[in-house]
Amino acid sequence: MIPTVEYANGCVRMIDQTKLPNETVFVDCRTIEEVGRAIKTMIIRGAPAIGVAAAMGVSLEAQAIDATDFDSFYSRLEKKCDELARSRPTAVNLGWSIARMKAVAQANRNLPIPELKERLRQEALAVCEEDIAANKAMGRFGQTLFDNGDTVLTHCNAGALATAGYGTALGVIRAAIESGKKIQVFANETRPFLQGARLTVWELMEDQIPVKLITDNMCGHFMKKNQIQRVVVGADRIAANGDVANKIGTYMVAVLAQRHGIPFYVAAPISTLDLTLP
Amino acid sequence: MIPTVEYANGCVRMIDQTKLPNETVFVDCRTIEEVGRAIKTMIIRGAPAIGVAAAMGVSLEAQAIDATDFDSFYSRLEKKCDELARSRPTAVNLGWSIARMKAVAQANRNLPIPELKERLRQEALAVCEEDIAANKAMGRFGQTLFDNGDTVLTHCNAGALATAGYGTALGVIRAAIESGKKIQVFANETRPFLQGARLTVWELMEDQIPVKLITDNMCGHFMKKNQIQRVVVGADRIAANGDVANKIGTYMVAVLAQRHGIPFYVAAPISTLDLTLP
Repeated sequence: MIPTVEYANGCVRMIDQTKLPNETVFVDCRTIEEVGRAIKTMIIRGAPAIGVAAAMGVSLEAQAIDATDFDSFYSRLEKKCDELARSRPTAVNLGWSIARMKAVAQANRNLPIPELKERLRQEALAVCEEDIAANKAMGRFGQTLFDNGDTVLTHCNAGALATAGYGTALGVIRAAIESGKKIQVFANETRPFLQGARLTVWELMEDQIPVKLITDNMCGHFMKKNQIQRVVVGADRIAANGDVANKIGTYMVAVLAQRHGIPFYVAAPISTLDLTLP
Repeated sequence: MIPTVEYANGCVRMIDQTKLPNETVFVDCRTIEEVGRAIKTMIIRGAPAIGVAAAMGVSLEAQAIDATDFDSFYSRLEKKCDELARSRPTAVNLGWSIARMKAVAQANRNLPIPELKERLRQEALAVCEEDIAANKAMGRFGQTLFDNGDTVLTHCNAGALATAGYGTALGVIRAAIESGKKIQVFANETRPFLQGARLTVWELMEDQIPVKLITDNMCGHFMKKNQIQRVVVGADRIAANGDVANKIGTYMVAVLAQRHGIPFYVAAPISTLDLTLP
Protein backbone atom coordinates (compact mmCIF):
# COMPACT_ATOMS: atom_id res chain seq x y z
CA MET A 1 0.00 0.00 0.00
CA ILE A 2 1.43 3.36 -1.10
CA PRO A 3 1.48 5.80 1.85
CA THR A 4 -1.01 8.67 1.52
CA VAL A 5 1.17 11.10 3.47
CA GLU A 6 4.68 10.81 4.97
CA TYR A 7 6.95 13.11 6.92
CA ALA A 8 10.59 12.67 6.01
CA ASN A 9 13.70 14.61 5.01
CA GLY A 10 12.25 17.96 5.96
CA CYS A 11 9.15 17.67 3.80
CA VAL A 12 5.64 16.28 3.80
CA ARG A 13 5.27 13.89 0.88
CA MET A 14 1.80 13.13 -0.47
CA ILE A 15 0.44 11.10 -3.33
CA ASP A 16 -1.35 13.57 -5.64
CA GLN A 17 -4.97 12.40 -5.46
CA THR A 18 -6.06 14.73 -8.26
CA LYS A 19 -3.91 12.70 -10.68
CA LEU A 20 -5.11 9.22 -9.62
CA PRO A 21 -5.82 6.74 -11.10
CA ASN A 22 -4.10 7.74 -14.34
CA GLU A 23 -0.78 8.79 -12.79
CA THR A 24 0.96 7.96 -9.52
CA VAL A 25 2.68 11.26 -8.75
CA PHE A 26 4.07 12.48 -5.42
CA VAL A 27 4.11 16.06 -4.19
CA ASP A 28 6.73 17.27 -1.66
CA CYS A 29 5.54 20.13 0.55
CA ARG A 30 8.45 22.01 2.12
CA THR A 31 6.46 24.65 4.03
CA ILE A 32 3.20 24.91 5.97
CA GLU A 33 1.85 27.09 3.13
CA GLU A 34 2.52 24.33 0.64
CA VAL A 35 0.63 21.89 2.87
CA GLY A 36 -2.27 24.38 3.00
CA ARG A 37 -2.29 24.67 -0.78
CA ALA A 38 -2.21 20.87 -1.14
CA ILE A 39 -5.29 20.65 1.11
CA LYS A 40 -7.07 23.45 -0.75
CA THR A 41 -6.41 21.94 -4.19
CA MET A 42 -7.46 18.41 -3.12
CA ILE A 43 -3.99 16.92 -3.67
CA ILE A 44 -4.74 15.46 -0.25
CA ARG A 45 -8.34 14.98 0.96
CA GLY A 46 -10.28 12.90 3.45
CA ALA A 47 -10.80 14.26 6.95
CA PRO A 48 -8.25 12.05 8.78
CA ALA A 49 -5.57 12.45 6.09
CA ILE A 50 -6.00 16.22 6.23
CA GLY A 51 -5.54 16.07 10.01
CA VAL A 52 -2.29 14.14 9.64
CA ALA A 53 -0.99 16.42 6.89
CA ALA A 54 -1.84 19.46 9.01
CA ALA A 55 0.13 18.14 12.04
CA MET A 56 3.10 17.48 9.78
CA GLY A 57 2.72 20.93 8.23
CA VAL A 58 2.77 22.55 11.68
CA SER A 59 5.91 20.57 12.47
CA LEU A 60 7.51 21.78 9.20
CA GLU A 61 6.76 25.35 10.23
CA ALA A 62 8.18 24.76 13.74
CA GLN A 63 11.47 23.54 12.21
CA ALA A 64 11.65 26.66 10.05
CA ILE A 65 11.06 29.23 12.79
CA ASP A 66 14.22 31.11 13.64
CA ALA A 67 13.48 32.20 17.24
CA THR A 68 15.30 31.84 20.53
CA ASP A 69 12.47 32.46 23.01
CA PHE A 70 9.14 30.67 23.31
CA ASP A 71 6.89 33.69 22.93
CA SER A 72 8.26 34.81 19.57
CA PHE A 73 8.42 31.16 18.45
CA TYR A 74 4.82 30.60 19.43
CA SER A 75 3.39 33.81 18.06
CA ARG A 76 4.70 32.99 14.58
CA LEU A 77 3.59 29.34 14.87
CA GLU A 78 0.10 30.40 15.93
CA LYS A 79 -0.28 32.84 13.03
CA LYS A 80 0.70 30.17 10.49
CA CYS A 81 -1.55 27.62 12.19
CA ASP A 82 -4.51 29.95 11.89
CA GLU A 83 -3.86 30.39 8.16
CA LEU A 84 -3.64 26.63 7.70
CA ALA A 85 -6.90 26.12 9.58
CA ARG A 86 -8.74 28.07 6.88
CA SER A 87 -7.66 25.75 4.03
CA ARG A 88 -10.70 23.43 4.38
CA PRO A 89 -13.79 24.42 6.33
CA THR A 90 -15.60 21.05 6.46
CA ALA A 91 -13.04 18.58 7.86
CA VAL A 92 -13.07 18.94 11.64
CA ASN A 93 -9.87 16.89 11.91
CA LEU A 94 -7.96 19.84 10.48
CA GLY A 95 -8.81 22.12 13.41
CA TRP A 96 -8.46 19.25 15.87
CA SER A 97 -4.97 18.41 14.65
CA ILE A 98 -3.76 22.01 14.63
CA ALA A 99 -5.16 22.57 18.14
CA ARG A 100 -3.33 19.46 19.34
CA MET A 101 -0.02 20.70 17.94
CA LYS A 102 -0.52 24.14 19.52
CA ALA A 103 -1.34 22.54 22.86
CA VAL A 104 1.84 20.43 22.72
CA ALA A 105 3.86 23.56 22.03
CA GLN A 106 2.24 25.34 24.99
CA ALA A 107 2.69 22.36 27.31
CA ASN A 108 6.40 22.27 26.50
CA ARG A 109 7.07 26.00 26.57
CA ASN A 110 9.93 25.52 29.05
CA LEU A 111 11.93 23.24 26.75
CA PRO A 112 14.85 24.73 24.81
CA ILE A 113 13.61 25.65 21.31
CA PRO A 114 15.51 22.85 19.48
CA GLU A 115 14.01 20.26 21.87
CA LEU A 116 10.56 21.81 21.47
CA LYS A 117 10.89 21.49 17.69
CA GLU A 118 11.82 17.82 18.06
CA ARG A 119 8.88 17.34 20.44
CA LEU A 120 6.50 18.76 17.78
CA ARG A 121 8.03 16.53 15.12
CA GLN A 122 7.39 13.51 17.33
CA GLU A 123 3.83 14.66 17.91
CA ALA A 124 3.13 14.90 14.16
CA LEU A 125 4.46 11.36 13.72
CA ALA A 126 2.25 10.27 16.62
CA VAL A 127 -0.84 11.81 14.97
CA CYS A 128 -0.01 9.74 11.88
CA GLU A 129 0.63 6.49 13.77
CA GLU A 130 -2.43 6.93 15.95
CA ASP A 131 -4.56 7.41 12.86
CA ILE A 132 -3.47 4.10 11.39
CA ALA A 133 -3.87 2.39 14.77
CA ALA A 134 -7.36 3.89 15.17
CA ASN A 135 -8.34 2.68 11.70
CA LYS A 136 -7.12 -0.83 12.43
CA ALA A 137 -9.03 -0.87 15.72
CA MET A 138 -12.17 0.44 13.98
CA GLY A 139 -11.72 -2.24 11.35
CA ARG A 140 -11.48 -4.98 14.01
CA PHE A 141 -14.63 -3.78 15.76
CA GLY A 142 -16.52 -2.85 12.60
CA GLN A 143 -15.91 -6.03 10.65
CA THR A 144 -18.03 -7.99 13.14
CA LEU A 145 -21.05 -6.16 11.61
CA PHE A 146 -20.45 -7.77 8.21
CA ASP A 147 -21.46 -11.29 7.27
CA ASN A 148 -19.55 -13.64 5.04
CA GLY A 149 -20.74 -13.08 1.48
CA ASP A 150 -21.96 -9.49 2.00
CA THR A 151 -21.81 -6.94 -0.78
CA VAL A 152 -21.03 -3.58 0.79
CA LEU A 153 -21.81 -0.21 -0.79
CA THR A 154 -19.54 2.76 -0.10
CA HIS A 155 -19.75 6.39 -1.22
CA CYS A 156 -16.81 8.73 -1.85
CA ASN A 157 -13.42 7.53 -0.61
CA ALA A 158 -12.98 6.74 3.07
CA GLY A 159 -10.01 4.48 2.47
CA ALA A 160 -6.27 4.45 2.99
CA LEU A 161 -6.16 7.49 0.70
CA ALA A 162 -8.45 9.46 3.03
CA THR A 163 -6.35 8.61 6.09
CA ALA A 164 -2.73 7.98 7.00
CA GLY A 165 -3.37 4.37 5.94
CA TYR A 166 -5.80 1.41 6.06
CA GLY A 167 -8.87 3.63 5.94
CA THR A 168 -12.05 4.14 7.97
CA ALA A 169 -14.94 2.73 5.89
CA LEU A 170 -12.57 0.75 3.65
CA GLY A 171 -10.62 -0.25 6.78
CA VAL A 172 -13.72 -2.07 8.02
CA ILE A 173 -13.95 -3.83 4.65
CA ARG A 174 -10.21 -4.70 4.77
CA ALA A 175 -10.57 -6.10 8.29
CA ALA A 176 -13.59 -8.19 7.30
CA ILE A 177 -11.60 -9.71 4.45
CA GLU A 178 -8.56 -10.26 6.71
CA SER A 179 -10.84 -12.09 9.13
CA GLY A 180 -11.61 -14.53 6.34
CA LYS A 181 -14.98 -13.22 5.16
CA LYS A 182 -15.77 -13.03 1.48
CA ILE A 183 -16.80 -9.42 0.84
CA GLN A 184 -17.55 -7.58 -2.40
CA VAL A 185 -17.72 -3.80 -2.76
CA PHE A 186 -20.00 -1.57 -4.83
CA ALA A 187 -18.47 1.90 -5.15
CA ASN A 188 -20.62 4.90 -6.10
CA GLU A 189 -18.63 7.00 -8.55
CA THR A 190 -19.36 10.07 -6.36
CA ARG A 191 -20.03 12.97 -8.67
CA PRO A 192 -18.95 15.67 -9.25
CA PHE A 193 -15.34 14.95 -8.18
CA LEU A 194 -15.43 11.16 -8.76
CA GLN A 195 -13.61 10.12 -5.57
CA GLY A 196 -15.31 6.73 -5.79
CA ALA A 197 -14.43 6.14 -9.43
CA ARG A 198 -10.91 7.52 -9.20
CA LEU A 199 -9.77 6.68 -5.68
CA THR A 200 -11.88 3.94 -4.06
CA VAL A 201 -11.76 1.69 -7.11
CA TRP A 202 -8.01 2.29 -7.60
CA GLU A 203 -7.23 1.61 -3.96
CA LEU A 204 -9.31 -1.57 -3.75
CA MET A 205 -7.96 -2.91 -7.03
CA GLU A 206 -4.41 -2.33 -5.72
CA ASP A 207 -5.33 -4.60 -2.81
CA GLN A 208 -7.19 -7.06 -5.05
CA ILE A 209 -10.48 -6.50 -3.23
CA PRO A 210 -13.43 -7.22 -5.58
CA VAL A 211 -15.10 -3.91 -6.47
CA LYS A 212 -17.80 -2.84 -8.94
CA LEU A 213 -18.10 0.81 -9.94
CA ILE A 214 -21.65 2.13 -10.30
CA THR A 215 -23.04 5.59 -10.99
CA ASP A 216 -24.55 7.25 -7.92
CA ASN A 217 -28.07 6.94 -9.32
CA MET A 218 -27.77 3.13 -9.61
CA CYS A 219 -27.43 2.29 -5.92
CA GLY A 220 -31.19 2.41 -5.27
CA HIS A 221 -31.73 -0.12 -8.06
CA PHE A 222 -29.19 -2.55 -6.62
CA MET A 223 -30.63 -2.14 -3.13
CA LYS A 224 -34.09 -2.99 -4.44
CA LYS A 225 -32.64 -6.07 -6.17
CA ASN A 226 -31.14 -7.26 -2.84
CA GLN A 227 -27.65 -6.97 -4.26
CA ILE A 228 -26.37 -4.74 -1.44
CA GLN A 229 -26.40 -5.96 2.17
CA ARG A 230 -24.50 -3.21 4.00
CA VAL A 231 -23.50 0.43 3.53
CA VAL A 232 -20.39 1.92 5.13
CA VAL A 233 -19.12 5.48 4.67
CA GLY A 234 -16.72 7.87 6.39
CA ALA A 235 -17.50 11.33 7.80
CA ASP A 236 -16.16 14.86 7.57
CA ARG A 237 -17.66 15.91 10.90
CA ILE A 238 -20.05 14.39 13.44
CA ALA A 239 -22.10 16.67 15.69
CA ALA A 240 -22.86 15.99 19.36
CA ASN A 241 -26.37 14.78 18.45
CA GLY A 242 -24.96 12.20 16.03
CA ASP A 243 -25.66 14.14 12.82
CA VAL A 244 -23.05 13.31 10.21
CA ALA A 245 -21.64 15.75 7.63
CA ASN A 246 -20.10 13.97 4.66
CA LYS A 247 -19.72 14.16 0.90
CA ILE A 248 -22.79 15.17 -1.14
CA GLY A 249 -24.87 12.07 -1.86
CA THR A 250 -24.33 10.43 1.53
CA TYR A 251 -27.77 11.57 2.65
CA MET A 252 -29.33 10.12 -0.52
CA VAL A 253 -27.64 6.77 0.15
CA ALA A 254 -28.86 6.82 3.76
CA VAL A 255 -32.49 7.46 2.74
CA LEU A 256 -32.32 4.63 0.18
CA ALA A 257 -30.74 2.26 2.72
CA GLN A 258 -33.45 3.05 5.26
CA ARG A 259 -36.17 2.47 2.64
CA HIS A 260 -34.74 -0.99 1.93
CA GLY A 261 -33.90 -1.96 5.51
CA ILE A 262 -30.16 -2.08 4.81
CA PRO A 263 -27.84 -1.30 7.75
CA PHE A 264 -25.94 1.95 7.20
CA TYR A 265 -22.68 2.48 9.12
CA VAL A 266 -20.43 5.52 9.55
CA ALA A 267 -16.80 4.65 10.33
CA ALA A 268 -14.91 7.60 11.80
CA PRO A 269 -12.27 8.23 14.48
CA ILE A 270 -12.97 10.26 17.64
CA SER A 271 -11.14 13.21 16.05
CA THR A 272 -14.09 13.55 13.64
CA LEU A 273 -16.50 14.28 16.51
CA ASP A 274 -17.26 17.96 17.03
CA LEU A 275 -18.98 18.25 20.40
CA THR A 276 -19.18 22.03 20.03
CA LEU A 277 -21.94 21.44 17.45
CA PRO A 278 -25.16 20.60 19.33
CA MET B 1 -37.42 25.13 -31.23
CA ILE B 2 -35.30 22.94 -33.53
CA PRO B 3 -37.29 19.85 -34.67
CA THR B 4 -36.05 16.58 -33.17
CA VAL B 5 -37.07 14.52 -36.20
CA GLU B 6 -38.57 15.45 -39.58
CA TYR B 7 -39.65 13.53 -42.64
CA ALA B 8 -38.89 15.36 -45.86
CA ASN B 9 -37.32 14.97 -49.30
CA GLY B 10 -37.11 11.20 -49.04
CA CYS B 11 -35.17 11.14 -45.80
CA VAL B 12 -35.66 11.23 -42.04
CA ARG B 13 -33.68 14.16 -40.64
CA MET B 14 -32.70 14.12 -36.95
CA ILE B 15 -30.67 16.37 -34.72
CA ASP B 16 -27.69 14.28 -33.54
CA GLN B 17 -28.28 14.08 -29.77
CA THR B 18 -24.88 12.52 -29.12
CA LYS B 19 -23.23 15.78 -30.26
CA LEU B 20 -25.36 18.16 -28.19
CA PRO B 21 -24.80 20.60 -26.57
CA ASN B 22 -21.40 21.27 -28.15
CA GLU B 23 -22.49 20.93 -31.77
CA THR B 24 -25.83 21.25 -33.55
CA VAL B 25 -25.46 18.63 -36.27
CA PHE B 26 -28.20 16.97 -38.33
CA VAL B 27 -28.20 13.40 -39.61
CA ASP B 28 -30.17 12.39 -42.73
CA CYS B 29 -31.32 8.76 -42.77
CA ARG B 30 -32.17 7.54 -46.27
CA THR B 31 -33.12 3.92 -45.42
CA ILE B 32 -34.89 2.02 -42.65
CA GLU B 33 -31.51 0.51 -41.70
CA GLU B 34 -30.05 3.99 -41.19
CA VAL B 35 -32.98 4.87 -38.92
CA GLY B 36 -32.30 1.66 -36.94
CA ARG B 37 -28.64 2.57 -36.58
CA ALA B 38 -29.55 6.10 -35.44
CA ILE B 39 -31.78 4.59 -32.74
CA LYS B 40 -29.09 2.09 -31.70
CA THR B 41 -26.34 4.70 -31.46
CA MET B 42 -28.53 7.18 -29.53
CA ILE B 43 -28.48 9.82 -32.30
CA ILE B 44 -32.19 9.84 -31.51
CA ARG B 45 -33.51 8.69 -28.12
CA GLY B 46 -36.56 9.15 -25.91
CA ALA B 47 -39.43 6.69 -26.24
CA PRO B 48 -41.86 8.95 -28.17
CA ALA B 49 -39.17 10.29 -30.54
CA ILE B 50 -38.07 6.73 -31.30
CA GLY B 51 -41.68 5.86 -32.12
CA VAL B 52 -41.95 8.76 -34.56
CA ALA B 53 -38.59 8.00 -36.18
CA ALA B 54 -39.61 4.35 -36.56
CA ALA B 55 -42.87 5.23 -38.34
CA MET B 56 -40.92 7.49 -40.68
CA GLY B 57 -38.33 4.76 -41.20
CA VAL B 58 -41.06 2.26 -42.16
CA SER B 59 -42.42 4.81 -44.62
CA LEU B 60 -38.94 5.23 -46.14
CA GLU B 61 -38.74 1.50 -46.60
CA ALA B 62 -42.21 1.41 -48.18
CA GLN B 63 -41.15 4.03 -50.75
CA ALA B 64 -38.09 1.97 -51.63
CA ILE B 65 -39.83 -1.38 -52.15
CA ASP B 66 -39.99 -2.31 -55.80
CA ALA B 67 -43.04 -4.63 -55.88
CA THR B 68 -46.24 -4.75 -57.85
CA ASP B 69 -48.40 -6.98 -55.66
CA PHE B 70 -49.30 -6.54 -51.99
CA ASP B 71 -47.98 -9.87 -50.73
CA SER B 72 -44.43 -9.39 -51.99
CA PHE B 73 -44.57 -5.72 -50.90
CA TYR B 74 -45.70 -6.68 -47.43
CA SER B 75 -43.37 -9.61 -46.90
CA ARG B 76 -40.36 -7.37 -47.50
CA LEU B 77 -41.83 -4.55 -45.38
CA GLU B 78 -42.51 -6.95 -42.51
CA LYS B 79 -38.97 -8.35 -42.56
CA LYS B 80 -37.45 -4.87 -42.37
CA CYS B 81 -39.93 -3.84 -39.68
CA ASP B 82 -38.91 -6.80 -37.55
CA GLU B 83 -35.23 -5.84 -37.88
CA LEU B 84 -36.02 -2.25 -36.88
CA ALA B 85 -38.00 -3.44 -33.85
CA ARG B 86 -34.82 -4.97 -32.41
CA SER B 87 -32.88 -1.67 -32.38
CA ARG B 88 -34.00 -0.68 -28.84
CA PRO B 89 -35.56 -3.19 -26.46
CA THR B 90 -36.80 -0.79 -23.74
CA ALA B 91 -38.89 1.81 -25.56
CA VAL B 92 -42.35 0.33 -26.08
CA ASN B 93 -43.25 3.13 -28.52
CA LEU B 94 -40.90 1.55 -31.05
CA GLY B 95 -42.93 -1.66 -31.28
CA TRP B 96 -46.20 0.26 -31.01
CA SER B 97 -45.31 2.53 -33.91
CA ILE B 98 -44.10 -0.30 -36.16
CA ALA B 99 -47.24 -2.33 -35.40
CA ARG B 100 -49.36 0.67 -36.31
CA MET B 101 -47.61 1.07 -39.67
CA LYS B 102 -47.96 -2.66 -40.42
CA ALA B 103 -51.66 -2.53 -39.54
CA VAL B 104 -52.20 0.43 -41.89
CA ALA B 105 -50.50 -1.50 -44.69
CA GLN B 106 -52.72 -4.54 -44.04
CA ALA B 107 -55.87 -2.45 -43.81
CA ASN B 108 -55.10 -0.91 -47.20
CA ARG B 109 -53.93 -4.06 -48.97
CA ASN B 110 -56.40 -3.49 -51.80
CA LEU B 111 -54.97 -0.08 -52.76
CA PRO B 112 -52.62 0.14 -55.73
CA ILE B 113 -49.02 0.02 -54.43
CA PRO B 114 -48.21 3.69 -55.16
CA GLU B 115 -51.32 4.79 -53.24
CA LEU B 116 -50.46 2.42 -50.41
CA LYS B 117 -46.99 4.00 -50.17
CA GLU B 118 -48.56 7.44 -49.97
CA ARG B 119 -51.00 6.20 -47.30
CA LEU B 120 -48.04 4.96 -45.20
CA ARG B 121 -46.24 8.30 -45.66
CA GLN B 122 -49.34 10.10 -44.39
CA GLU B 123 -49.54 7.72 -41.43
CA ALA B 124 -45.92 8.45 -40.44
CA LEU B 125 -46.65 12.17 -40.55
CA ALA B 126 -49.77 11.53 -38.46
CA VAL B 127 -47.72 9.68 -35.82
CA CYS B 128 -45.48 12.74 -35.62
CA GLU B 129 -48.34 15.26 -35.45
CA GLU B 130 -50.28 13.20 -32.93
CA ASP B 131 -47.22 13.03 -30.71
CA ILE B 132 -46.91 16.81 -30.57
CA ALA B 133 -50.67 17.16 -30.05
CA ALA B 134 -50.59 14.55 -27.25
CA ASN B 135 -47.70 16.38 -25.56
CA LYS B 136 -49.53 19.70 -25.71
CA ALA B 137 -52.67 18.09 -24.27
CA MET B 138 -50.60 16.43 -21.51
CA GLY B 139 -49.01 19.79 -20.82
CA ARG B 140 -52.40 21.50 -20.50
CA PHE B 141 -53.69 18.86 -18.08
CA GLY B 142 -50.42 18.39 -16.24
CA GLN B 143 -49.61 22.02 -15.61
CA THR B 144 -52.61 22.34 -13.30
CA LEU B 145 -50.63 20.19 -10.83
CA PHE B 146 -47.91 22.86 -10.52
CA ASP B 147 -48.18 25.96 -8.36
CA ASN B 148 -46.84 29.38 -9.22
CA GLY B 149 -43.27 29.58 -7.85
CA ASP B 150 -42.62 25.83 -7.86
CA THR B 151 -39.16 24.43 -8.46
CA VAL B 152 -39.56 21.20 -10.42
CA LEU B 153 -36.96 18.41 -10.54
CA THR B 154 -36.62 16.30 -13.67
CA HIS B 155 -34.39 13.32 -14.45
CA CYS B 156 -32.99 12.38 -17.86
CA ASN B 157 -34.54 14.18 -20.86
CA ALA B 158 -38.26 13.91 -21.45
CA GLY B 159 -38.38 17.08 -23.49
CA ALA B 160 -38.88 18.16 -27.07
CA LEU B 161 -35.72 16.18 -27.85
CA ALA B 162 -37.29 12.96 -26.55
CA THR B 163 -40.45 13.47 -28.63
CA ALA B 164 -41.49 14.94 -31.95
CA GLY B 165 -41.67 18.28 -30.13
CA TYR B 166 -42.78 20.08 -26.94
CA GLY B 167 -41.96 17.14 -24.70
CA THR B 168 -43.72 15.02 -22.09
CA ALA B 169 -42.24 15.98 -18.68
CA LEU B 170 -40.76 19.19 -20.07
CA GLY B 171 -44.01 19.77 -21.95
CA VAL B 172 -45.81 20.01 -18.61
CA ILE B 173 -43.21 22.55 -17.48
CA ARG B 174 -43.56 24.51 -20.75
CA ALA B 175 -47.36 24.55 -20.38
CA ALA B 176 -47.12 25.74 -16.77
CA ILE B 177 -44.91 28.64 -17.87
CA GLU B 178 -47.20 29.40 -20.84
CA SER B 179 -50.10 29.57 -18.40
CA GLY B 180 -48.29 32.37 -16.59
CA LYS B 181 -46.77 30.46 -13.67
CA LYS B 182 -43.22 31.15 -12.56
CA ILE B 183 -41.46 27.77 -12.63
CA GLN B 184 -37.81 26.89 -12.11
CA VAL B 185 -36.24 23.58 -13.06
CA PHE B 186 -33.58 21.46 -11.37
CA ALA B 187 -32.12 18.96 -13.84
CA ASN B 188 -30.27 15.86 -12.62
CA GLU B 189 -27.23 15.39 -14.84
CA THR B 190 -28.32 11.73 -15.35
CA ARG B 191 -25.20 9.61 -15.35
CA PRO B 192 -23.75 7.75 -17.11
CA PHE B 193 -24.96 9.25 -20.41
CA LEU B 194 -25.65 12.77 -19.13
CA GLN B 195 -28.99 13.30 -20.89
CA GLY B 196 -29.91 15.87 -18.22
CA ALA B 197 -26.64 17.79 -18.45
CA ARG B 198 -26.37 17.64 -22.23
CA LEU B 199 -29.97 17.69 -23.45
CA THR B 200 -32.42 18.96 -20.82
CA VAL B 201 -30.27 21.94 -19.89
CA TRP B 202 -29.59 22.77 -23.56
CA GLU B 203 -33.24 22.52 -24.50
CA LEU B 204 -34.50 24.62 -21.58
CA MET B 205 -31.83 27.27 -22.08
CA GLU B 206 -32.84 27.49 -25.77
CA ASP B 207 -36.35 28.34 -24.52
CA GLN B 208 -35.04 30.62 -21.75
CA ILE B 209 -36.62 28.49 -19.04
CA PRO B 210 -34.64 28.88 -15.76
CA VAL B 211 -32.73 25.66 -15.10
CA LYS B 212 -30.09 24.57 -12.59
CA LEU B 213 -27.95 21.52 -13.32
CA ILE B 214 -27.21 19.29 -10.31
CA THR B 215 -25.43 15.96 -9.98
CA ASP B 216 -27.82 13.04 -9.42
CA ASN B 217 -26.61 12.58 -5.84
CA MET B 218 -27.59 16.18 -4.91
CA CYS B 219 -31.35 15.91 -5.40
CA GLY B 220 -31.94 14.38 -1.95
CA HIS B 221 -30.15 17.31 -0.35
CA PHE B 222 -32.27 19.88 -2.18
CA MET B 223 -35.45 17.98 -1.35
CA LYS B 224 -34.53 18.00 2.32
CA LYS B 225 -33.87 21.76 2.11
CA ASN B 226 -37.39 22.29 0.67
CA GLN B 227 -35.93 23.62 -2.55
CA ILE B 228 -37.85 21.17 -4.77
CA GLN B 229 -41.68 21.16 -4.77
CA ARG B 230 -42.49 18.76 -7.61
CA VAL B 231 -40.86 15.97 -9.63
CA VAL B 232 -41.85 15.17 -13.21
CA VAL B 233 -40.25 12.54 -15.44
CA GLY B 234 -41.06 10.65 -18.64
CA ALA B 235 -41.27 6.88 -19.12
CA ASP B 236 -39.89 4.20 -21.45
CA ARG B 237 -42.70 1.75 -20.73
CA ILE B 238 -45.63 1.56 -18.30
CA ALA B 239 -47.04 -1.84 -17.31
CA ALA B 240 -50.74 -2.59 -16.79
CA ASN B 241 -50.29 -2.40 -13.01
CA GLY B 242 -48.83 1.12 -13.27
CA ASP B 243 -45.16 0.14 -12.85
CA VAL B 244 -42.94 2.54 -14.76
CA ALA B 245 -39.70 1.62 -16.53
CA ASN B 246 -37.47 4.61 -17.11
CA LYS B 247 -33.84 5.73 -17.09
CA ILE B 248 -31.61 4.45 -14.27
CA GLY B 249 -31.97 6.75 -11.27
CA THR B 250 -35.70 7.36 -11.68
CA TYR B 251 -36.42 4.87 -8.89
CA MET B 252 -33.92 6.65 -6.63
CA VAL B 253 -35.62 9.99 -7.27
CA ALA B 254 -39.03 8.42 -6.55
CA VAL B 255 -37.89 6.99 -3.21
CA LEU B 256 -36.39 10.35 -2.21
CA ALA B 257 -39.54 12.22 -3.26
CA GLN B 258 -41.71 9.84 -1.23
CA ARG B 259 -39.45 10.28 1.82
CA HIS B 260 -39.88 14.07 1.60
CA GLY B 261 -43.59 14.10 0.71
CA ILE B 262 -42.92 15.65 -2.70
CA PRO B 263 -45.44 14.82 -5.48
CA PHE B 264 -43.84 12.70 -8.21
CA TYR B 265 -45.45 12.68 -11.67
CA VAL B 266 -44.85 10.56 -14.77
CA ALA B 267 -45.84 12.29 -18.02
CA ALA B 268 -46.25 9.83 -20.89
CA PRO B 269 -48.57 9.30 -23.88
CA ILE B 270 -50.89 6.28 -24.20
CA SER B 271 -48.39 4.73 -26.65
CA THR B 272 -46.05 4.20 -23.68
CA LEU B 273 -48.54 1.89 -21.95
CA ASP B 274 -47.84 -1.82 -22.43
CA LEU B 275 -50.94 -3.67 -21.27
CA THR B 276 -49.36 -7.01 -22.20
CA LEU B 277 -47.17 -6.59 -19.11
CA PRO B 278 -49.23 -7.44 -16.03
